[in-house]
Amino acid sequence: MSLDWEQTVVDARDPAALAAWWKDALGWVSVGETDPDEYEIRASPDRLPGLLFIAVPEGKSVKNRLHLDFRGDDRDAEVERLLALGATRADVGQGDETWVVLADPEGNEFCVLSSRK
Amino acid sequence: MSLDWEQTVVDARDPAALAAWWKDALGWVSVGETDPDEYEIRASPDRLPGLLFIAVPEGKSVKNRLHLDFRGDDRDAEVERLLALGATRADVGQGDETWVVLADPEGNEFCVLSSRK
Repeated sequence: MSLDWEQTVVDARDPAALAAWWKDALGWVSVGETDPDEYEIRASPDRLPGLLFIAVPEGKSVKNRLHLDFRGDDRDAEVERLLALGATRADVGQGDETWVVLADPEGNEFCVLSSRK
Repeated sequence: MSLDWEQTVVDARDPAALAAWWKDALGWVSVGETDPDEYEIRASPDRLPGLLFIAVPEGKSVKNRLHLDFRGDDRDAEVERLLALGATRADVGQGDETWVVLADPEGNEFCVLSSRK
């Protein structure tokens, strides 16, 4: 038996808007747009795992216990690009580290790691 | 510019134990074991994203806003296998759905989706 990691699911107040934001931020594509309360994006149509945004009634109340880490060729340029798209800087007590902590428009923390070698 | 999804990070009370549990549950491998507070596992050594378990002082207090979904060839057999490993059934108000909600040994909710077609 084996399990494939299909997606990381993100609870959202507005899953359509949040999925659209992440799609732009990552340059990904939408897949399976059949359910008005669920929006999935993937790096390419057949590439797993994806990110699936689903509607929930409750808002975010504490620091997320799971978060996403991304890495690019130029950390600081990616951070500036994401801030321009509407991300915000987040302080989770990280201090002076090699990664930068941001939050998406619904406050979900994520990190931009130091650039690829 | 582009960002690669490097990992989903999971806060943990005992990251070594939780990483070991997920490694067994998924049949994955450990990578980069250099930091005693960080344990990363991947489906294979070079396959991204991985799962990175890190030590945090606080415990889990609410339903996770992000969670992982997995899919296998036989949903019910996978659920029984995971329960035998120490997963527990979780009620997040899902009702009667095609997926089964479980929790890992630290209470992180995850889903086993209906079987592959």
